[in-house]
Amino acid sequence: MSDQTDLQTQSKKPLILVTNDDGITSLGIRTLVELMKTLGEVVVVAPNSPQSGMGHAITIGEPLRLYSTEIFQDVDEYECSGTPADCVKLAKHYVLKDRAPDLVVSGINHGSNSSISVLYSGTMSAAIEAAIEGIPAIGFSLCDFREKAGFDHVKELVLSIVQSALKNGIPKGVALNVNLPAESEQPIRGIKICRQANAKWQEKFDYRKDPYGRGYLWMAGDFVNYDHDKEDTDEWALSQNYVSVVPCQYDLTAYQALESITHWEF
Amino acid sequence: MSDQTDLQTQSKKPLILVTNDDGITSLGIRTLVELMKTLGEVVVVAPNSPQSGMGHAITIGEPLRLYSTEIFQDVDEYECSGTPADCVKLAKHYVLKDRAPDLVVSGINHGSNSSISVLYSGTMSAAIEAAIEGIPAIGFSLCDFREKAGFDHVKELVLSIVQSALKNGIPKGVALNVNLPAESEQPIRGIKICRQANAKWQEKFDYRKDPYGRGYLWMAGDFVNYDHDKEDTDEWALSQNYVSVVPCQYDLTAYQALESITHWEF
Repeated sequence: MSDQTDLQTQSKKPLILVTNDDGITSLGIRTLVELMKTLGEVVVVAPNSPQSGMGHAITIGEPLRLYSTEIFQDVDEYECSGTPADCVKLAKHYVLKDRAPDLVVSGINHGSNSSISVLYSGTMSAAIEAAIEGIPAIGFSLCDFREKAGFDHVKELVLSIVQSALKNGIPKGVALNVNLPAESEQPIRGIKICRQANAKWQEKFDYRKDPYGRGYLWMAGDFVNYDHDKEDTDEWALSQNYVSVVPCQYDLTAYQALESITHWEF
Repeated sequence: MSDQTDLQTQSKKPLILVTNDDGITSLGIRTLVELMKTLGEVVVVAPNSPQSGMGHAITIGEPLRLYSTEIFQDVDEYECSGTPADCVKLAKHYVLKDRAPDLVVSGINHGSNSSISVLYSGTMSAAIEAAIEGIPAIGFSLCDFREKAGFDHVKELVLSIVQSALKNGIPKGVALNVNLPAESEQPIRGIKICRQANAKWQEKFDYRKDPYGRGYLWMAGDFVNYDHDKEDTDEWALSQNYVSVVPCQYDLTAYQALESITHWEF
């Protein structure tokens, strides 16, 4: 699927910014950098520590550190003390001196970011931050959170999605949330364009005592999918071993609710 | 505007959870707790440190601490080591043992959370987390980030909005983002129901050296409002000294983009 003909007809190679939330040394970002190097000029600005669950956090009130690294080859690369959203801001406005990348890709995350998890996802916050900057952006997540998760089975699919995005252009104000099935004996059945399933995490807190006798709590929980029978959702696509692609926006206005609230009396 | 008749006709006082992102000792949450005590039974679960800019971050991979406090009077109150979204999860599933509050209010934030700032806002992430839990929720922010900001001029307005929300009910899947003008010689002109303005922060990074000669960066920036002439936006309402109320949703699907992406070839 990774036909490079379209790109070769372009006058120059696209500039691709790569970031993630698992940190610059993770296997997922190494995979993504290797793939993007076959398509364009690559710049990496990624967190120097795991930032999972950071949502759209940014660093205000304290300074950021940025160091160049030598993890990859033939790549302009930096690690940053901040969040994934910080990385995108730093990359565009400091590292690239306000030159906009042609594409921002984030990931490949170790673990799913489908349905409600998009809100908590550092991976997707980087992609959405890029969309706010007017840059086409895609967040990739693998439904396998293990540190040594296998990525070989999704390489062609990632390339294909990136090439299609570069060719077609992602609509303004939109970032793509791509979730990829974990490696298994079943082949991946294809790619589905979906909506975000209506779901939530039903938390359970596990109370323990530390060696000093003080209490602490672990947050854990069960995933509850209210849309389990809805075939147009990302959760359904993934359950059927499809790749899910959800276009996401950063305008949170609930337009359908404006009318009723306008009639409230204050 | 704070007519309590409607509430007095209810069979019991509503249970109101109060949280914020500036931390449990801030003036903004003290103001909100005092106001909510006049309307219902109040539980406070709030961060023990400032969490501004935390977006929808949650604490995974490390445990949480929760301690009871004695900051307020006649209130069940706790400080938490986590984020605003953690506070809502902990409050419902641990402190309240899965009893749902009738309302979650977050704030009053010291500083605006209008337009794009809603994405970075810890205040609004708490409200949106409550909406995910199916609980009516409102985030309040004052357009004055000073530690000693004045809140007296907005007290009646906050009460009025909360009472109206309790009376009318907030639509499912929606949290209200309320921004309140800073204290000034001009009286507040009223309350406008709005959409989120299309705007962004144009970052500038200030490079400095620490006493050890190592570089660090401060993120700063200018606010750019692409909708500066649009009278249906929160930014316009605030510029005219109105309170802005934006209904926000957590379904990020860009439905208008689904059609075009469905035609992509992979």
